[in-house]
Amino acid sequence: MKKIGVVTSGGDAPGMNAAIRAIVRIAYSRNLQVIGFERGWEGLMRNQSKPLTPRSVGGILQLGGTILHTIRCPEFTVKKGVRKAAQTLSSDHIDGLVVIGGNGSFKGALDLSRETDTLIVGVPATIDNDIYGTDETIGFDTAVNTAVTEIDKIRDTAISHERIFIVEVMGRSRGFLALTAGLTSGAEIIIVPEIRSKRENVFQTLKENSRKGKRSSIIVKAEGAGDARLLAKEIEGYTGAEVRISVLGYAQRGGSPTARSRLLASLFGNKAVELLLKGQGNKIVGLQNGQVSAISLEKSCKTEKQLDLNLLFLANMLAT
Amino acid sequence: MKKIGVVTSGGDAPGMNAAIRAIVRIAYSRNLQVIGFERGWEGLMRNQSKPLTPRSVGGILQLGGTILHTIRCPEFTVKKGVRKAAQTLSSDHIDGLVVIGGNGSFKGALDLSRETDTLIVGVPATIDNDIYGTDETIGFDTAVNTAVTEIDKIRDTAISHERIFIVEVMGRSRGFLALTAGLTSGAEIIIVPEIRSKRENVFQTLKENSRKGKRSSIIVKAEGAGDARLLAKEIEGYTGAEVRISVLGYAQRGGSPTARSRLLASLFGNKAVELLLKGQGNKIVGLQNGQVSAISLEKSCKTEKQLDLNLLFLANMLAT
Amino acid sequence: MKKIGVVTSGGDAPGMNAAIRAIVRIAYSRNLQVIGFERGWEGLMRNQSKPLTPRSVGGILQLGGTILHTIRCPEFTVKKGVRKAAQTLSSDHIDGLVVIGGNGSFKGALDLSRETDTLIVGVPATIDNDIYGTDETIGFDTAVNTAVTEIDKIRDTAISHERIFIVEVMGRSRGFLALTAGLTSGAEIIIVPEIRSKRENVFQTLKENSRKGKRSSIIVKAEGAGDARLLAKEIEGYTGAEVRISVLGYAQRGGSPTARSRLLASLFGNKAVELLLKGQGNKIVGLQNGQVSAISLEKSCKTEKQLDLNLLFLANMLAT
Amino acid sequence: MKKIGVVTSGGDAPGMNAAIRAIVRIAYSRNLQVIGFERGWEGLMRNQSKPLTPRSVGGILQLGGTILHTIRCPEFTVKKGVRKAAQTLSSDHIDGLVVIGGNGSFKGALDLSRETDTLIVGVPATIDNDIYGTDETIGFDTAVNTAVTEIDKIRDTAISHERIFIVEVMGRSRGFLALTAGLTSGAEIIIVPEIRSKRENVFQTLKENSRKGKRSSIIVKAEGAGDARLLAKEIEGYTGAEVRISVLGYAQRGGSPTARSRLLASLFGNKAVELLLKGQGNKIVGLQNGQVSAISLEKSCKTEKQLDLNLLFLANMLAT
Repeated sequence: MKKIGVVTSGGDAPGMNAAIRAIVRIAYSRNLQVIGFERGWEGLMRNQSKPLTPRSVGGILQLGGTILHTIRCPEFTVKKGVRKAAQTLSSDHIDGLVVIGGNGSFKGALDLSRETDTLIVGVPATIDNDIYGTDETIGFDTAVNTAVTEIDKIRDTAISHERIFIVEVMGRSRGFLALTAGLTSGAEIIIVPEIRSKRENVFQTLKENSRKGKRSSIIVKAEGAGDARLLAKEIEGYTGAEVRISVLGYAQRGGSPTARSRLLASLFGNKAVELLLKGQGNKIVGLQNGQVSAISLEKSCKTEKQLDLNLLFLANMLAT
Repeated sequence: MKKIGVVTSGGDAPGMNAAIRAIVRIAYSRNLQVIGFERGWEGLMRNQSKPLTPRSVGGILQLGGTILHTIRCPEFTVKKGVRKAAQTLSSDHIDGLVVIGGNGSFKGALDLSRETDTLIVGVPATIDNDIYGTDETIGFDTAVNTAVTEIDKIRDTAISHERIFIVEVMGRSRGFLALTAGLTSGAEIIIVPEIRSKRENVFQTLKENSRKGKRSSIIVKAEGAGDARLLAKEIEGYTGAEVRISVLGYAQRGGSPTARSRLLASLFGNKAVELLLKGQGNKIVGLQNGQVSAISLEKSCKTEKQLDLNLLFLANMLAT
Repeated sequence: MKKIGVVTSGGDAPGMNAAIRAIVRIAYSRNLQVIGFERGWEGLMRNQSKPLTPRSVGGILQLGGTILHTIRCPEFTVKKGVRKAAQTLSSDHIDGLVVIGGNGSFKGALDLSRETDTLIVGVPATIDNDIYGTDETIGFDTAVNTAVTEIDKIRDTAISHERIFIVEVMGRSRGFLALTAGLTSGAEIIIVPEIRSKRENVFQTLKENSRKGKRSSIIVKAEGAGDARLLAKEIEGYTGAEVRISVLGYAQRGGSPTARSRLLASLFGNKAVELLLKGQGNKIVGLQNGQVSAISLEKSCKTEKQLDLNLLFLANMLAT
Repeated sequence: MKKIGVVTSGGDAPGMNAAIRAIVRIAYSRNLQVIGFERGWEGLMRNQSKPLTPRSVGGILQLGGTILHTIRCPEFTVKKGVRKAAQTLSSDHIDGLVVIGGNGSFKGALDLSRETDTLIVGVPATIDNDIYGTDETIGFDTAVNTAVTEIDKIRDTAISHERIFIVEVMGRSRGFLALTAGLTSGAEIIIVPEIRSKRENVFQTLKENSRKGKRSSIIVKAEGAGDARLLAKEIEGYTGAEVRISVLGYAQRGGSPTARSRLLASLFGNKAVELLLKGQGNKIVGLQNGQVSAISLEKSCKTEKQLDLNLLFLANMLAT
């Protein structure tokens, strides 16, 4: 192991830069060279890279986004693209590659692993927190706090106007962000894609809240859990009250990472380099039962992470 | 002058509570009693109020929203409703009424002033900053900072993905928020309702930016300045690049007020009580050329505040 | 189990209110009554309490501090005081008592448990994170983020002036906060009370940094790890450069709790009520290996939580 | 006017980078070249500079500190140093120089103006807000908000513990920051260097507050307005209660600038270039009665800006 590559792929997440910094500085302390491929798989396919040194990753720990840039790359989803990337790894003498990203990036990494001898290690970084093999991903804590800060502000207006608000958070197919943000912001109702929510239950809860003297309610809904406008209309039809919608957008993916996102990035980056130095590849690093650990990349790609329904049950009890 | 009333009306704005606190505490130091009417004009019409004392307004300075609540009140737009409110003022022996709100609230206050002898003073509080007679309204600075913080985060993602983002800020008919937030977040393009923006200019600027090496651009657009989706599609058609939209929602109206919003609330609340003590009514307080001052309520209602086009020109130059 | 009491004791921590809310709402959903003793042990000794209901704990989730207040209470450190508190529990028919606080509070709880039949459960809430039996305490994540935010700001000035800064964070005898805040803010040097730091090592690191081209350095030091002024003078003597000191004060104990502090508060509050319902007392709840669990109150009081020296080692490597 | 220089000097202030960006981009749009002298007067004396272009000032708008660095420079306080700087201006063919800084920097600029034909314009940037000729300086609004955010957090702890806190904010000789931060955070007592505060008045206010039912108090004190420890002891002696001290340190000088600090930086930077283009030098730009304007550099240096005592009076009434 003499030279490793780093690539960030898929949607960006706060803490990706902290992970790059950790990988580079740990690698150098172990006498490894590091190069960064730019713009995700595209940089790997076109061999667009730059050397990364302890100094060149100075001052990025607290920055959102990724200094390596990232891009959607349809070309990489077909074998021809993957082989071009494998050729780059070979021609550049890359002994180990660290892929920082989410589920889609790891599926790409798995494909790539079948075409190359370079050891590949995945570092989970996505605000969706939907990666099997880690309790938590880099960026999740930041996105949750961004959402909670926004919901706290919306509650000011909800209480002042005594209104029902639907707040839509990111999450096309998974509800981790909606669930944790909903629970910690005290949302009266949380709607996630994993569970078919019955309208009757929503109406029932709103009615019950009104009876108890709650004059405003916040519904936190994941992007992929039904249409917000339709839901608003149905609630308006049922309650006779006006419902407002607020869609928390791309700001959830940006911003300076929280301490916890930076910590995970540092721990995961360190572990990734350690694995490579031990000659272990085709793994992803993660936090399991609070401990930094690693599982098979293939297993991570092929297993769905379960949402903790006890948390949803707790959230509902706490919002009474 | 023995007893004054306070009411918050229309959309809430951060700093309304700071204004209530100032009015109550200044009034008490001048031996005036204060009562707060709840839920805007509705509370005035139905005589729903509570006494406000220096202690009961403790701990609210830093809170968003309004402890007096606010509501849209269609009934108040007809004379019958206004007369009911006037009767409350009379039966409650209210010598002076402070109306905290925006343009719509002031129009209501003007109507009310024609049906009552109670002196009425308006305190401008709206995130729209669209009130003639004051350089700045309570809440505007907070909303600008909320928007800028969000745009700073979105820029992380825009730069990482090298994409064009359209960020829609509040402002159905006026562009004060879009202009100031756009200028101070370094938006490449700012679109306000007051100026018909030519598509060719937008395309031209994006093309020019691309030529200069800018790989991402932020367009800050006021809610009322055209449809974001249509604009996105047109830009996609022209540039061939993906465009993302982020709508900054109701969080812009909430949150703890900034120091400046609290300062204006304190100065304006103080001035409002002073005016009443001098027997002056049918005025609004405001900041003119940096000085706390007052103008006629009627004039404020009937004059449109002009957007400073020099600022827009400056913003465009700064974003080169 | 019909009636439970809640008390917050010792230094306040962000998330105490979230814990009170969770305990009250979970208890009510299980048909338990709840009363809150005010001002820590003093309220228990003097029987100063108020009923807590799901509605009375509304709107406190996001507030720093504790609505039950807290106070240092020397009287409780002697047996006479403890017995008075035990009498209150008896006369008020309190079947279970939840004590929210840190190490000192838990020692008091242990003393009290020896004089009463009331079941006692501890909920760890302290920014020091120094409680054996839980990976993390309520409030720790908030304090870390507050410190990191401040250190990020100080770094602006440190870089602009190319200076060395010593930032002192809270922690009289333990370095958990200093270590995590230091690692996640990228501090060049971290000094904790648990490890005698040799001046030579500090000088050596600063010299090395200077050689590498780092023109500014941040030293994060726990309050109890030596005198900041003395250290500053020694560094000035050695390097010839000016050293600045910034003491992050009580703001570290306040502020709206982060999502994670709110989450732990919710999970711990829920677990505490569950334990009482199962008839289990003299325990503290906590997070062990990422799972909510419980250990003996006595064991927690009598065992010192170890600082993870691997983290310190990692921090040093990352700051190269 | 073909080529202008920019220098930041003295203590850094949030928004200095925003001012550099504005100057450079406006200058380029007017076909002027810009070079930045590094590390304040030292860079001018030693001719250490770098070209600044619209692209090289990209991405700095939101950053605290100054990319040009700044340093204390005793050598510049004597004529020999000033002449060296003047020689640099001459040898580099600098037609206009923009000095971004505070009072000390402007005194240096005045000295320099007597040794050179280069036109000099000052842009006021200091968190102290103590510059005659401008209602507000760049960075002041940011520092006030940083202080207020901290004081809001400290209040959580103050209320929970029912204690008196002394919060010391920056300001060795002037109380602008203490006054505005104190008023807008609702401090019970504000102590500034400009007014000899009588201990009896402080005691009286605390006693009065206690009588009214206020169980905690915040005293905001400027750094230069007496010793915090001494004051704490005296209050403890008088009231018998514990008093805590929190010194808000260098974080007040850093952090991302607020929208208002960025706005002033943009307006002032623009005005500075405009003045130079008109051939006007030896001026400082500023905000007078809410309008961007300019006054003589010499007058600014030789006149003391007055603290608005009405604000102090208002703050005292509001904290009742």
